Amino acid sequence: MATNFSKKEENYSQWYNDIVLKADLAEYSAVRGCMVIKPYGYSIWEKIQATLDKMFKDTGHSNAYFPLFIPKSFFSREADHVKGFAKECAVVTHYRLKTSDDGKEIIVDENAKLEEELIIRPTSETIIWDTYKKWIQSYRDLPLKINQWANVVRWEMRTRLFLRTAEFLWQEGHTAHATKEEALEEAQTMLNIYANFAENWMAIPVIKGIKTESERFAGAIDTYCIEALMQDGKALQCGTSHFLGQNFAKAFDVKFLNKENKLDYVWATSWGVSTRLIGALIMSHSDNKGLVLPPKLAPIQVVIIPIFKNKEQLDAISIKALEIKNLLEDKGISVKYDDRDTRKPGYKFSEYEFKGIPIRLVLGPRDLENNTIELARRDTLEKNIYQQTDIITKIENLLSIIQKNIFQKALNYTDNNTYKADTWEEFKDIIENKGGFVFAHWDGTAETEQKIKEETKATIRTIPLNNPLEEGKCIYSGKPSKQRVIFAKAY
Amino acid sequence: MATNFSKKEENYSQWYNDIVLKADLAEYSAVRGCMVIKPYGYSIWEKIQATLDKMFKDTGHSNAYFPLFIPKSFFSREADHVKGFAKECAVVTHYRLKTSDDGKEIIVDENAKLEEELIIRPTSETIIWDTYKKWIQSYRDLPLKINQWANVVRWEMRTRLFLRTAEFLWQEGHTAHATKEEALEEAQTMLNIYANFAENWMAIPVIKGIKTESERFAGAIDTYCIEALMQDGKALQCGTSHFLGQNFAKAFDVKFLNKENKLDYVWATSWGVSTRLIGALIMSHSDNKGLVLPPKLAPIQVVIIPIFKNKEQLDAISIKALEIKNLLEDKGISVKYDDRDTRKPGYKFSEYEFKGIPIRLVLGPRDLENNTIELARRDTLEKNIYQQTDIITKIENLLSIIQKNIFQKALNYTDNNTYKADTWEEFKDIIENKGGFVFAHWDGTAETEQKIKEETKATIRTIPLNNPLEEGKCIYSGKPSKQRVIFAKAY
Repeated sequence: MATNFSKKEENYSQWYNDIVLKADLAEYSAVRGCMVIKPYGYSIWEKIQATLDKMFKDTGHSNAYFPLFIPKSFFSREADHVKGFAKECAVVTHYRLKTSDDGKEIIVDENAKLEEELIIRPTSETIIWDTYKKWIQSYRDLPLKINQWANVVRWEMRTRLFLRTAEFLWQEGHTAHATKEEALEEAQTMLNIYANFAENWMAIPVIKGIKTESERFAGAIDTYCIEALMQDGKALQCGTSHFLGQNFAKAFDVKFLNKENKLDYVWATSWGVSTRLIGALIMSHSDNKGLVLPPKLAPIQVVIIPIFKNKEQLDAISIKALEIKNLLEDKGISVKYDDRDTRKPGYKFSEYEFKGIPIRLVLGPRDLENNTIELARRDTLEKNIYQQTDIITKIENLLSIIQKNIFQKALNYTDNNTYKADTWEEFKDIIENKGGFVFAHWDGTAETEQKIKEETKATIRTIPLNNPLEEGKCIYSGKPSKQRVIFAKAY
Repeated sequence: MATNFSKKEENYSQWYNDIVLKADLAEYSAVRGCMVIKPYGYSIWEKIQATLDKMFKDTGHSNAYFPLFIPKSFFSREADHVKGFAKECAVVTHYRLKTSDDGKEIIVDENAKLEEELIIRPTSETIIWDTYKKWIQSYRDLPLKINQWANVVRWEMRTRLFLRTAEFLWQEGHTAHATKEEALEEAQTMLNIYANFAENWMAIPVIKGIKTESERFAGAIDTYCIEALMQDGKALQCGTSHFLGQNFAKAFDVKFLNKENKLDYVWATSWGVSTRLIGALIMSHSDNKGLVLPPKLAPIQVVIIPIFKNKEQLDAISIKALEIKNLLEDKGISVKYDDRDTRKPGYKFSEYEFKGIPIRLVLGPRDLENNTIELARRDTLEKNIYQQTDIITKIENLLSIIQKNIFQKALNYTDNNTYKADTWEEFKDIIENKGGFVFAHWDGTAETEQKIKEETKATIRTIPLNNPLEEGKCIYSGKPSKQRVIFAKAY
């Protein structure tokens, strides 16, 4: 466990991979680019799901489930959409296997070829809008606000655990509205939910903004996003919310009778976050001792480890430990008591440190005599001895202090790595040597954006919402610009 | 809503379909055999998931996620398994689409052919045991008790909403153990969880038993099952739990060092229930007025409908209605207050009746004056006027009375449709003219089982656990038999 572990200053990418593997979060499977999400990693995803699902329901959304398969022809209905998604998808062509004539092998049965190929959903706008056509006739059927928790497949060539895999888990919201204003408001509401979740649960500071045309979702009018800065100075897109206009309604012919009894196309949004968020969580907070988890998303918030030489001692300690465990659980705090006798305390210490458990309690025979208990914080690595009587209140407060501290550290990092660049030289220097978010003027053309990308690998991450207007000159073309946008290298 | 609705005595199959469609549970999608689970149907599935998930975790299981795709070669590793599952599966052969040379179409890119085809999982034993090989070295790694909530695909030719669709949602548990005894105990524990859930949440009486060799899961040593009787006299398998012996450990070479430091193959179980349970729920309790839901699984347990002629009346009623709603919600009861002014009360009555909401409350201006409220039960269709002061306690009690009543009705039906047959004529008569469960002697051979199936369409549903031994003669062959088994026509 956690031996031969890379340092993040030396090899960030290897450090990331080591945390994912050695903290038992996920691993690659026998299928190219597909991951197995291990129980500990999946329990973090369950926390993410439960929190977001409640936020969605509290804002009037319901869950539903649409097919995994999309008929090939559906893809072509929305012109931009097919360009964006046809390139990397898994195609089902047959529906049966058979034994080969020599009896030695299992082969595809050529007699079982599908008339029309089916695509494994890379995203579900097309199959959902084909369904909405049946559900929407009148303004009374609107708004329709549905979310789906599902697996999707995008045949990525270069994969990284959680950040980019062929199959991943996500939620995708798909809503239908009677007016443009209402759809725009929905797209922004969901962006705000994502930002709230990122900052107050994941403890990751994010910038809310809008994508440029070239970074937009294929089929959207506008893509809103939240962007965060990872500890290696690269940006990670953490969630997107799309205003789709009437594009999909037109592609799938979804009209409704409005209150004035006139037919109009429906207005749409879609929005999603994925298991990629676990990658963001790892990269935002972890250190050279392993994972660091914000208490609100930690599957185990407190671990209790007994120090004992014999069964008699363990029994005595267990009584006290289980008493503390119960009191903490009554407060809604999740606790693990690890009384295994097959592992030494030191092994357990580093195991839970590596897995990012926010608080570790240690109880030994002397603590029983003195009514004391040792408490260690994962975020600061501080250790202290407390009276047992105070420990429950102490831990309740501490969990919220740790949550805030982790956020503050990430915010300080982001602030310290956010720059303004006013010349091309300055810009290139920052991107190349420092990394981070760079606020710079841009002339607004896709051509300049592309050239900057080619020369520096930096892309426009977002145009922040409520961006202050400021006269300036494009760092690349020198043409006039009215606002700064955020550049960064990105995952 | 609910017009042209079939009667179950006239056309059971159409009646079933009408309920699924008109109660907004599910519908077919554009993809052959695949369903869309609509929000109301999905919210029942969420209740099923939440309840079972807690039961699994309380018995020491964790969730994880394994890939959707299974390499074709994995299938062939376990000989029985491939026979059972290779026939009806979705095969991915390519990973890219492209625009055709004439620019008119999107076609499969023949240059993007996979070296080895991938099968969409029909069940995950193979990919999971390939993974367990990496996770299990010693007895310290055992038991390994993992569950997965996932979609699976079986290319069924004849589909029926919820009961048999090409894609469906399920959970599949996969556990690994050091001893045969422990694996057997796990398989039985999970069967008991399923039976408990079926009877005490779904209100469906079930028979626990074991499958004959020919009805067994492909790759199992023994398949335990719960079987229930639907209102048309046909049986439905509601859940299965398999003792897999060392079959998959041998196929995927998963060995462990036991406490005596010797290498041995690991013992396994797998177990699952699916969205088919929603089909069982519908068919067990519903009537000619639509769906009937047991309170413990009803997404909405109480609906409150106001009777009003103008906004002033509605406002006054709403104050009282929302007060009652809050009091009920404080007791953990889910309540919907339907104050829409676009629908008449009569429309709402039949809508919620059709959707199976257990309790309907009606509040009108006169109720406000008299401090009364009307309460209607969905299960008995009884209506009564109560004092508002008593209503919260009344409803709390009533929900548990309804839960029990629904179970009791289903149990009476099952008892009244369970027969003993001692001769072949008697047997054929019951199967053909009455339906139901038939306890009869069988000589224990697959040959006889097959012949009975061919002649009557009845199959051996199960050999009940703790079946009393009883000397007798096989109803078909006349050969000696030591116990009765349960025959029925089945879904």
